[in-house]
Amino acid sequence: MTLPANDSTSFPIGMFDSGVGGLTVMQQLIKTLPYEHITYFGDTARLPYGSKSPETILRYSIENAIFLMQKQIKMLVVACNTASAYALENLQLMFKIPIIGVIDPGVESALQATQTGRIAVLGTKGTILSQSYQKAILHKASNAFVFPIACPLFVPLVEENCIDHPATRLLIRDYLEPLKAQRIDTLLLGCTHYPLLKNLIKEEIGEGIHIVDSAAACAEQVSVLLSHHGMQNRTTVSPNYRYFVSDNPMQFQLLGHSFLGMSIPHVESR
Amino acid sequence: MTLPANDSTSFPIGMFDSGVGGLTVMQQLIKTLPYEHITYFGDTARLPYGSKSPETILRYSIENAIFLMQKQIKMLVVACNTASAYALENLQLMFKIPIIGVIDPGVESALQATQTGRIAVLGTKGTILSQSYQKAILHKASNAFVFPIACPLFVPLVEENCIDHPATRLLIRDYLEPLKAQRIDTLLLGCTHYPLLKNLIKEEIGEGIHIVDSAAACAEQVSVLLSHHGMQNRTTVSPNYRYFVSDNPMQFQLLGHSFLGMSIPHVESR
Repeated sequence: MTLPANDSTSFPIGMFDSGVGGLTVMQQLIKTLPYEHITYFGDTARLPYGSKSPETILRYSIENAIFLMQKQIKMLVVACNTASAYALENLQLMFKIPIIGVIDPGVESALQATQTGRIAVLGTKGTILSQSYQKAILHKASNAFVFPIACPLFVPLVEENCIDHPATRLLIRDYLEPLKAQRIDTLLLGCTHYPLLKNLIKEEIGEGIHIVDSAAACAEQVSVLLSHHGMQNRTTVSPNYRYFVSDNPMQFQLLGHSFLGMSIPHVESR
Repeated sequence: MTLPANDSTSFPIGMFDSGVGGLTVMQQLIKTLPYEHITYFGDTARLPYGSKSPETILRYSIENAIFLMQKQIKMLVVACNTASAYALENLQLMFKIPIIGVIDPGVESALQATQTGRIAVLGTKGTILSQSYQKAILHKASNAFVFPIACPLFVPLVEENCIDHPATRLLIRDYLEPLKAQRIDTLLLGCTHYPLLKNLIKEEIGEGIHIVDSAAACAEQVSVLLSHHGMQNRTTVSPNYRYFVSDNPMQFQLLGHSFLGMSIPHVESR
């Protein structure tokens, strides 16, 4: 992996997701690395990714990465589970800058949390069908038991702000039903939208089960990777956050607030 | 409007939608015009359209129309309400062949059904925000009362085959709640996915309310337009139906069956 020239340390970290979901990862990144500039791209004109084919996800991911490369980023975070599942390896082979996804960090979190090795993974259809989580967990802990569940309606429910709706609870109950007999001790939220449903999921799955997501672990890995390559931003001025979208900036701005945990003053069209 | 040369009568009718929804229109078209060839395009790589911006919908619609023009169609049916709302006029200005949408036919159906002129319209966010139905109804019946309701979760619920799920009933009840006090006598399904929820909607809205959709009326208008221009297919051989999608053909083939009311033997990638 060839590293960018030294003066690239002040370049932003680039991130992309199909929409607002990746902002849960950006929130953690800001906490962990408060002096890094970040440029975020949400592919809102083509969301969702979770129900589309591997070939389409790969094509979109490459296009998104090229868009961010043109913004002179020093590192790329694929802040979308479905894109991490289907495109991460290709992107890493294609581009020179360091690129990380959200699946390995999520797996790290889950393996740290579990004591019995019995782990459920919730994700979009695409992520679950890719078997990326299943393979990554078993690669690191060959005696683990993994229970994958596709929850295709969670993203639209969150996007429509139905987080407290009784229908959402019914659907969560239904999706989690097959887990009851499995005695899992850890549940991994394998989609960046799902942390917003964490409380409801916790109530339905019951006490004593660790619920983990990849956002904090991903931010930690970005930090380690920056240090390793000597690429941390050397100035401590107030960082610059830029947001680009492929569709209506207004909708992203309004919805993004609850994902990022702070207001988004300005969103640019791609 | 310049008409195609006479030998174009054997050309197919082109149709597009964001996905499988437009197949409810195609089903009616086949019933009404059993000797016409039809070429259908589902833009499954970019669905849904209902939550995206007017500019994006217009761009996608033009691209879809150009794709179908290259397949030598003699007429274009915009079998998607959101695309009809935001792109129909532009498409009609741009291309020479006759182009019709689903909004005017839906309005015709509603006005034929209503006796009190109090009409509810259910649609995607995009369709409702466009005010296309509201304007079209009031243009034809200036003393009508129109009650528009955006139902953004209906499309994902239908796409995920949750037609009989209790959560779907709860959401229908919620969306229809504001209608209770309005004494409507007609409810127009302003989205090609919604006919699959017709029974549940009927149960929730109660007896004595006409539920209409645009599919049959749209097929009727296509028939009239073909006659008017002398463009009916003159042979009565078994017609050729072709299906193209921008994403995975398999998923379209499986899901499309219940929308079209018959099996889809083969789907091609765009």
